[in-house]
Amino acid sequence: MSNTAKTTWVSVKPGSDFPIQNLPYGIFKTASHSPRAGVAIGDFILDLAVLGAAGKFSGIVQDVSVFSKPTLNSFIALGKPVTNKIRNRIIELLSEENTELQNDIALREQVFVNQSDATMLLPVQIPNYTDFYSSIEHATNVGKLFRPDNPLMPNWKHLPVGYHGRASSIVVSGTPIRRPKGQTKTDDMPMPVFGASKALDIELEMAFVVGKETDMGESVSTASAEDYIFGMLLFNDWSARDIQRWEYVPLGPFLGKNFGSSVSPWLVPLEALKNFRVEAPKKDTEILPYLQQSGLANFDIQLEVELTTPSGESAVISKSNTKYLYWSIAQQLAHHTVNGCNIQVGDMYASGTISGPTPDSLGSLLEITEGGKKALYLAEGIERKYLQDGDTITLRAFAEKDGVRIGFGSCVGTILPAHS
Amino acid sequence: MSNTAKTTWVSVKPGSDFPIQNLPYGIFKTASHSPRAGVAIGDFILDLAVLGAAGKFSGIVQDVSVFSKPTLNSFIALGKPVTNKIRNRIIELLSEENTELQNDIALREQVFVNQSDATMLLPVQIPNYTDFYSSIEHATNVGKLFRPDNPLMPNWKHLPVGYHGRASSIVVSGTPIRRPKGQTKTDDMPMPVFGASKALDIELEMAFVVGKETDMGESVSTASAEDYIFGMLLFNDWSARDIQRWEYVPLGPFLGKNFGSSVSPWLVPLEALKNFRVEAPKKDTEILPYLQQSGLANFDIQLEVELTTPSGESAVISKSNTKYLYWSIAQQLAHHTVNGCNIQVGDMYASGTISGPTPDSLGSLLEITEGGKKALYLAEGIERKYLQDGDTITLRAFAEKDGVRIGFGSCVGTILPAHS
Repeated sequence: MSNTAKTTWVSVKPGSDFPIQNLPYGIFKTASHSPRAGVAIGDFILDLAVLGAAGKFSGIVQDVSVFSKPTLNSFIALGKPVTNKIRNRIIELLSEENTELQNDIALREQVFVNQSDATMLLPVQIPNYTDFYSSIEHATNVGKLFRPDNPLMPNWKHLPVGYHGRASSIVVSGTPIRRPKGQTKTDDMPMPVFGASKALDIELEMAFVVGKETDMGESVSTASAEDYIFGMLLFNDWSARDIQRWEYVPLGPFLGKNFGSSVSPWLVPLEALKNFRVEAPKKDTEILPYLQQSGLANFDIQLEVELTTPSGESAVISKSNTKYLYWSIAQQLAHHTVNGCNIQVGDMYASGTISGPTPDSLGSLLEITEGGKKALYLAEGIERKYLQDGDTITLRAFAEKDGVRIGFGSCVGTILPAHS
Repeated sequence: MSNTAKTTWVSVKPGSDFPIQNLPYGIFKTASHSPRAGVAIGDFILDLAVLGAAGKFSGIVQDVSVFSKPTLNSFIALGKPVTNKIRNRIIELLSEENTELQNDIALREQVFVNQSDATMLLPVQIPNYTDFYSSIEHATNVGKLFRPDNPLMPNWKHLPVGYHGRASSIVVSGTPIRRPKGQTKTDDMPMPVFGASKALDIELEMAFVVGKETDMGESVSTASAEDYIFGMLLFNDWSARDIQRWEYVPLGPFLGKNFGSSVSPWLVPLEALKNFRVEAPKKDTEILPYLQQSGLANFDIQLEVELTTPSGESAVISKSNTKYLYWSIAQQLAHHTVNGCNIQVGDMYASGTISGPTPDSLGSLLEITEGGKKALYLAEGIERKYLQDGDTITLRAFAEKDGVRIGFGSCVGTILPAHS
């Protein structure tokens, strides 16, 4: 039961996001399959409900109905000791040297579904969603625009600033996003006006999903935080900057954010990322003991943002990396629970926009266009300050080393015009 | 099937919160009853699961399992056309002139449970929780303390300011609240320190619960908002002011709030409050059309806060009223959805602290003690600036007119010492 198998008998194209070293989980349906759990391998989905019913997880999980539910919550709630055994069992079944599934032609026909035939659904039901603000480059860039005299707040280097977001409007990749309407007011206007947002933006983020709950009053240390984290996915925190700017003082972002957020459908388990750990950026400010963390706190995951116009012009408008995050996912969770706030299975915790140190690594149009002042050139005659109706944003993420690529697939959303 | 019945054959003491005109819903359990839905009448709970199984709602609801679930969500999701019929049927069964249940001694013995024998549970599973900031007196008082030069922000009179809160840590009345630990820093300190909060406070609030969902992209008008609101309850938004002060700029309150919030167990349907409608306070600033509302926007519900010390001294430290709210519940919901943010059954929307115009009507210790500067006298030798370990806070609410009292019961919480 090796989990280091390098090759599989399943046909996986070079450069695929989903080699045998990855095996992310998702929820899919097809014309003939009700929503259920699956694992991505190459261009296929391995149907866990069918594998479970065929007894392939016997001795690991008794109640295989966890694979036939419309969310991964019950599966994840089994706990890492069990889900890691399931992961190892899937690696075993797919390994080149193993013939158990390879030679069972009848089961193979049932168990593999083409990704192109499937519709991916939201992988988890999300009891709570928090958005952090953990990239120092992003916080500084945005701070300069919203508060020129005071870009980085005094608390920023002492704690991972975060706020609660809206769980109901988190949707899976591919769901269109309706341009929001709302109140806006600039300093030169006597009164606010109402209308469709004119400053619709993206935020390039990663999120982690919690797999183990705590009781109220309990805290999670940085050392144990990753025991509570099942995996990660891409997160686009769509933002209406004009609505946000008028509403956010003093209680934070609200309608400028909660009209919609998009996530990628494949939840990559932390176990698939263990070879991609890197040091977090150096901190020039001493932090309190409960936030201190030893070892390699960050992950080297490459990120990119592509913008496609309604006429089909595409451009990669940013390339960033999760390694830039000043505050790690372990620090985020330790901070969130230090006051006894309880966490629940399926909770989603997003990083905040991940910007890098260079102009081509900015994770929002707000930063790229300096608050809508400097147009972004996309192609001959095509520029953007903020998103236009019909624009499509695709986020992508992958870790790559020694010929192994752990991909996150993509997180896609197209802007629909505001309701009239 | 009158819903104006004045008297019931059930023994209800004068001054009870729960006459036949009220009939709030809750979830209860006893030594012999699994969690289920009930209705409060006098000192009793009417067991809806037993009534349903006895066929007393036939013709109204087919699947009576909605009464045997551990939350009210499925019941509420039936929609007002159905839940109002159930309410009218319960009024009919309890009316003095009706003998159907009154004369059925065997069923009566099963269907009534003493409230003193029951444990009340959280009435709904809460998919999303938002906290507004809708009392102008509170916003002004707090603004003065946190931002002396700038108490009321320019947006405050144009929109109901709100932010997302934490759903996981909302608990039912009676659940103890653990004093949170966290980072605090005052201006004169070079570095933040970590420890138990020294400024633990309450917020006297009411919350409404949504009974009808919307799709993403959809908006709810002020005129139709109350069709989406099932009922109301008491809400204590416990707050650690020292943690909040250091963390809340720029993204709003987080760990200063999310360690716990308490709600009363009885969900009072809007239908029980229809005789207690009053005008909202006059607005001196024109508001945008989507927030305008005609008719009696507010409710005249009297509120009080009692503090009981570990040695048993009790004092009512505030008396307020929901009629003071500048922004009504309909305006709150219309604003929340104007950008297309979708709402879900069970969602909880709290008002923000409800303070009145007089010194005895302030809804938080922050206001009562002017930020911890002026001690509150409770009894000989007993004062408070903020809450001490072992203190118990009891919120109460009731509407009363023409001899009819619609009570909300109480919302109680006792402070446990911080974990060492």
